Amino acid sequence: MARRTVVVGGGAGGIGAAGAVKAVDKANEVLAFTEYEDAAYSPCGIPYVHGKEIPDFESLFLATKQAYVDAGIDIHYQTKVISIDTAAHTVTIEGQAPVHWDTLVVATGFNYADPGIPGSELGGLYYVKNIRQAMEWDKILDDVKTAVVYEASPLGLEMVTALAHRGIETHLVDPQPWALAEVADPDIAAPVEDSWIEMGVKMHFNTDIDAFLGDEQGQVRAVRMTGMSAGELAADLVVVCTKKEPNTALAQAAGLSIGSTGGIVVNERMETSVAGVYAAGDCAEVPHGVTNIPIQGLSGSHAYAQGKVAGANAGGGSRKYQPVYVPWGMVAGKWMIGGVSFGETLADALGMPYIVGKATGISRARYYPGVKKVIVKLLAEPATHRLIGAQMVGGEGIKERADFLAMAVKTGVTLEDLAWMENVYSPPIGALNEPIAVAAQNALNSLKT
Amino acid sequence: MARRTVVVGGGAGGIGAAGAVKAVDKANEVLAFTEYEDAAYSPCGIPYVHGKEIPDFESLFLATKQAYVDAGIDIHYQTKVISIDTAAHTVTIEGQAPVHWDTLVVATGFNYADPGIPGSELGGLYYVKNIRQAMEWDKILDDVKTAVVYEASPLGLEMVTALAHRGIETHLVDPQPWALAEVADPDIAAPVEDSWIEMGVKMHFNTDIDAFLGDEQGQVRAVRMTGMSAGELAADLVVVCTKKEPNTALAQAAGLSIGSTGGIVVNERMETSVAGVYAAGDCAEVPHGVTNIPIQGLSGSHAYAQGKVAGANAGGGSRKYQPVYVPWGMVAGKWMIGGVSFGETLADALGMPYIVGKATGISRARYYPGVKKVIVKLLAEPATHRLIGAQMVGGEGIKERADFLAMAVKTGVTLEDLAWMENVYSPPIGALNEPIAVAAQNALNSLKT
Repeated sequence: MARRTVVVGGGAGGIGAAGAVKAVDKANEVLAFTEYEDAAYSPCGIPYVHGKEIPDFESLFLATKQAYVDAGIDIHYQTKVISIDTAAHTVTIEGQAPVHWDTLVVATGFNYADPGIPGSELGGLYYVKNIRQAMEWDKILDDVKTAVVYEASPLGLEMVTALAHRGIETHLVDPQPWALAEVADPDIAAPVEDSWIEMGVKMHFNTDIDAFLGDEQGQVRAVRMTGMSAGELAADLVVVCTKKEPNTALAQAAGLSIGSTGGIVVNERMETSVAGVYAAGDCAEVPHGVTNIPIQGLSGSHAYAQGKVAGANAGGGSRKYQPVYVPWGMVAGKWMIGGVSFGETLADALGMPYIVGKATGISRARYYPGVKKVIVKLLAEPATHRLIGAQMVGGEGIKERADFLAMAVKTGVTLEDLAWMENVYSPPIGALNEPIAVAAQNALNSLKT
Repeated sequence: MARRTVVVGGGAGGIGAAGAVKAVDKANEVLAFTEYEDAAYSPCGIPYVHGKEIPDFESLFLATKQAYVDAGIDIHYQTKVISIDTAAHTVTIEGQAPVHWDTLVVATGFNYADPGIPGSELGGLYYVKNIRQAMEWDKILDDVKTAVVYEASPLGLEMVTALAHRGIETHLVDPQPWALAEVADPDIAAPVEDSWIEMGVKMHFNTDIDAFLGDEQGQVRAVRMTGMSAGELAADLVVVCTKKEPNTALAQAAGLSIGSTGGIVVNERMETSVAGVYAAGDCAEVPHGVTNIPIQGLSGSHAYAQGKVAGANAGGGSRKYQPVYVPWGMVAGKWMIGGVSFGETLADALGMPYIVGKATGISRARYYPGVKKVIVKLLAEPATHRLIGAQMVGGEGIKERADFLAMAVKTGVTLEDLAWMENVYSPPIGALNEPIAVAAQNALNSLKT
């Protein structure tokens, strides 16, 4: 039976949901509302335009507005939903009559955590998010001499790399002792930090910012640091890369249950505490497959996948979203860094026992041009030897190995399975010994001593 | 208890075995015999030196002879074992007293199938195998104008690509209708063939050679073709890339059981029909994990892994070799081509029912420099949807995906698991949609119609 679904949000979660509603039944009506001028571009590409790896912002758009019209998805741009009424089954747009829905998908995304630092009102503080704003900032970057990137989050790593690549004197300021400390182990982050040094990046770890300092025009001129690098640091620009917090103001006002991460609680159908109301993407939380602990703020791929499940169910279908094992990966400095689930640091923080094995291998035959280092660390349950996490840094094939190992964690693959795994050996594309296998062998060997 | 192991063969299987014997117990004595001047170089690298992708042959050596001496492995070079006596526990070297062993590893490798074509005695027929001979042939290649590669085996594909890359007019002659027809499906081979055309390669499929024609000096001057491209084709060089047949002359004379592939029969300990005698590598056959049919002639990685199992058991340890799922991959033309287990062609030949899904995806974000096409085809059991095979062609990440999918076949991963798999999305290293996942979704969607 055809129905009307309203989608709040035009990011990966919202667009995934809108498409899925129509995929279930073409007769379904889909209205999507976004406060921005655009939908369905790749915000993940913004740092690479700033870094001049990609020539222009236009290439980041995935589809034209007409493509959505053609698909029967009615997107209302620059249209801010100001309230949700779950009893009346409506959303309200400022100055308009309430819009009825049969089912609703909340995909309101994230906000950067407020750093709570005096001087936040100054010009020159850049929060990377909206593509139109990014276009304006990109012009400003031409005149920036010195930039501070605040917090070594995934976006922080991308922006440090991009700004350094663009030739800007770049400083990274982070309260943690190493880059990406919430996700990556220090030995995995170390090659990235070494390559930043080669690129001229200045790092200030164990260091926080307690004030943004402005000039007479209200523009940032410096940051005041506390901790290890205490003191004033002049800067034309500060890129604020704090944690992505779920944007749940609308959801909270509508009475949807909020979970321990601050994200909207959903069941495996991506349905919230209110029947017929779904949530997807950075505004929602989902269970981690190993710990069953709720997490949020994953990748655009996760948001899109969650959106498709939410949209399928909102449209009258039946799909389940499964616990996540979170393969991740990115380019940082001159390396690819990535992993699955967690590394030693997070396992320690969670009090999870584990056995570990690490190996340094290569991506091709030792003698083949373009061969790169590939470092793999594996964590496994002590009793069963089942894989529970991985950490990697290398020059090739990190994404594909992370995808593999996420499935391996999910399906209960053991260190023994990995130690004796078959692997492709062909000089231009793979080495005799697969680093994953050697890491697993090393973990098993460590148990013998 | 320390013992003496004799290893016959200095390739990947033999060297893997010799090392494993010592790894079990340093007190074990290991003697290895090879008829060649060298051991432990990478024969797989030879085509790339011919193709000028690698600058010299020296870089193909993995270890010095002294390294083996230091490891306590006593390798006898240019020493041909002429018989094995399993009752007396000896091997015989021509002109020497029998050498005693407590355990024996037969790792005698392969011979190219005799093409059985008149003119096989002519000069200018090149069988790629020994590195010293390859060095001599490499000098000859400088003067070669036109070369024929006979049979589109894996080595054939590498040699066609290498010779074309070197600027030699290269003809591929193959009795099958497309390249690598025993392993790859025609739609997967097609991009490779297209890129060969771009490189100036001339292909003669459905065509056999019935004579090598010589000049007055006894050098090959042409091949005579039958079938689709019937006629005479002038050539300075013919690279004979026929099937690799197990080299079992010694094993057969010693009474070891030979299996359906012509390879030495071994159990899961890589032990032959005679207790204490092991075999590993291209001379042995092992069961395929999906069909349980014995197969042989796999990769150097398989030979090395089999050698390690054989050597561990020969040295007094206890290791099992598992059925193989055969991830494979290589560079051919301008593409990487690969797969796992089998594709549609081989499944059809085996009479195996399957469902199939195919997708064309990309290796990075659509807008990121260096993005390449990645085509994935998946085969699954109709009843359970368990993955049974894969075929791929693309520009990046084929090796890593093949490794992943081999484990997926082994562990019973289904199309549903793959369709909703998590994947890394980051513009420089991975696309929003993983091609493996889309292929699985397409397979499942095909069932609905």
